[in-house]
Amino acid sequence: MIICRTINELRQAIRQHRSSHLDSKVGFVPTMGYLHRGHGSLLERARDNCSLVVLSIFVNPLQFGPNEDFERYPRDEKRDLEVAQSAGTDIVFLPQVAEMYPTPTKTVITVSGVTERLCGASRPGHFDGVATVVSKLLNIVQPDFAYFGMKDAQQVAVIEQMVYDLNMPVTIVPCPTLREEDGLALSSRNVYLSDEERRQAIVLSAALADAEALMQDAAGLTPDRLQAVVVERIQSASLAHIDYAEVLSYPSLEPIDSFEGADRIIVALAVKFGKTRLIDNRILHIPA
Amino acid sequence: MIICRTINELRQAIRQHRSSHLDSKVGFVPTMGYLHRGHGSLLERARDNCSLVVLSIFVNPLQFGPNEDFERYPRDEKRDLEVAQSAGTDIVFLPQVAEMYPTPTKTVITVSGVTERLCGASRPGHFDGVATVVSKLLNIVQPDFAYFGMKDAQQVAVIEQMVYDLNMPVTIVPCPTLREEDGLALSSRNVYLSDEERRQAIVLSAALADAEALMQDAAGLTPDRLQAVVVERIQSASLAHIDYAEVLSYPSLEPIDSFEGADRIIVALAVKFGKTRLIDNRILHIPA
Repeated sequence: MIICRTINELRQAIRQHRSSHLDSKVGFVPTMGYLHRGHGSLLERARDNCSLVVLSIFVNPLQFGPNEDFERYPRDEKRDLEVAQSAGTDIVFLPQVAEMYPTPTKTVITVSGVTERLCGASRPGHFDGVATVVSKLLNIVQPDFAYFGMKDAQQVAVIEQMVYDLNMPVTIVPCPTLREEDGLALSSRNVYLSDEERRQAIVLSAALADAEALMQDAAGLTPDRLQAVVVERIQSASLAHIDYAEVLSYPSLEPIDSFEGADRIIVALAVKFGKTRLIDNRILHIPA
Repeated sequence: MIICRTINELRQAIRQHRSSHLDSKVGFVPTMGYLHRGHGSLLERARDNCSLVVLSIFVNPLQFGPNEDFERYPRDEKRDLEVAQSAGTDIVFLPQVAEMYPTPTKTVITVSGVTERLCGASRPGHFDGVATVVSKLLNIVQPDFAYFGMKDAQQVAVIEQMVYDLNMPVTIVPCPTLREEDGLALSSRNVYLSDEERRQAIVLSAALADAEALMQDAAGLTPDRLQAVVVERIQSASLAHIDYAEVLSYPSLEPIDSFEGADRIIVALAVKFGKTRLIDNRILHIPA
């Protein structure tokens, strides 16, 4: 496994692979590190489909708001490298902030529409930062495939919209959310949770399961009613503070008045436990 | 010469070249058509340095304001193809608007700083449109080199900033402005000029020549004084209406109070003759 800390080293290593493999396929997994099995599953998916697997670990300051957790975002390079290696990673890109932003960027990519609700509303500027850094990383790595977890469903929607609009030469591969046995979606931020918060945090996946069960027989059900049930379930956890709990069209992420005419919806949640903000979501098909 | 009207055709043609040439170098000249010798010189520069020369002709609606000349921008596909062929072009990309924007783009690239003055101030949204379409074209063509004329000096600054900030894998090659014998910078928009406007339009290059002469002995000269001389000269043409005439630092395009500490400046002009807006500029070194 090659470790690259500069853009030049990384490009050199990828060029070398490309030039020595006629049918090279480069798979790319961009992350903020503190890797868990969810990241591992993205790397394994890339390993299955590509001749070269590139992982980036970069906590991108541009996508954090001034009162968010950029400084205290968990980092563990040594363990990350072990996870990367055991998942079959070929190259790890580990740049410092000054390598990615030698001067403050004057160029920003903005995606409208899919960013109006959810984290786009509650974290102003967040998706500009995501779109801009993902664009930089895609330009540096020039992968054939890039893998993203569906836990960040809105992030996937933003990146798919950007790739589509800007004709970026890459295929985005959304991958399923991985969960703990009790249902909690894997997240690097889970490490922040106290024991009691961790116990109560299963309310997110439980509320999504409620929503799925309700949608089995959607006759007479409205998006508002579905949302109310989800909200009520989350509020049953004493430490949970809802940032948002929304029922939107998918993949356009727009508010809907009814399920008529909709093909798929997303139930999307952001819930704070103390300082820790967790997100989760489920995409549901509307029964015919 | 291959003519491609769809993105897929174009990518296919370029892929074919890349796969059959070990040391392929793709040179790209993006234009809005109505080609003149200026465009020809960009194509010839690409021809000299690359194994494949790609020209795009696309009048990009995104970079025109609501009261600008998108609809009446001059078009002549037949003559353009002759110019392209005689300059040694290999592939011409001629997309319709619906091919480049099958749906209205939700993704926009914004470059700040270098866009604050000049055309960035007088044409709001213009450089967002330029940056976005150039990014799309670069993602479609994936050239090694892209060639731009320095008549649009601010456009070059915007694109160089974007390529730098987003780590785009391309080298931008700025090329000198070509001129008529009397000094008028070549522009597709010159065709709009009446005979009398055409005669008076030489005042732009004449004013820039004045500025250059004055800077030979810059002792006691200030940017304000230089600007005043340029303005006075342009106002000597009865049909000229100044949009802007500015003296800025180069390449940062910022206002300056004095020439001290400056290495290079740009004198940049936008002047209207009737409905026709002409631009020109000169980059001057500050004498030591």
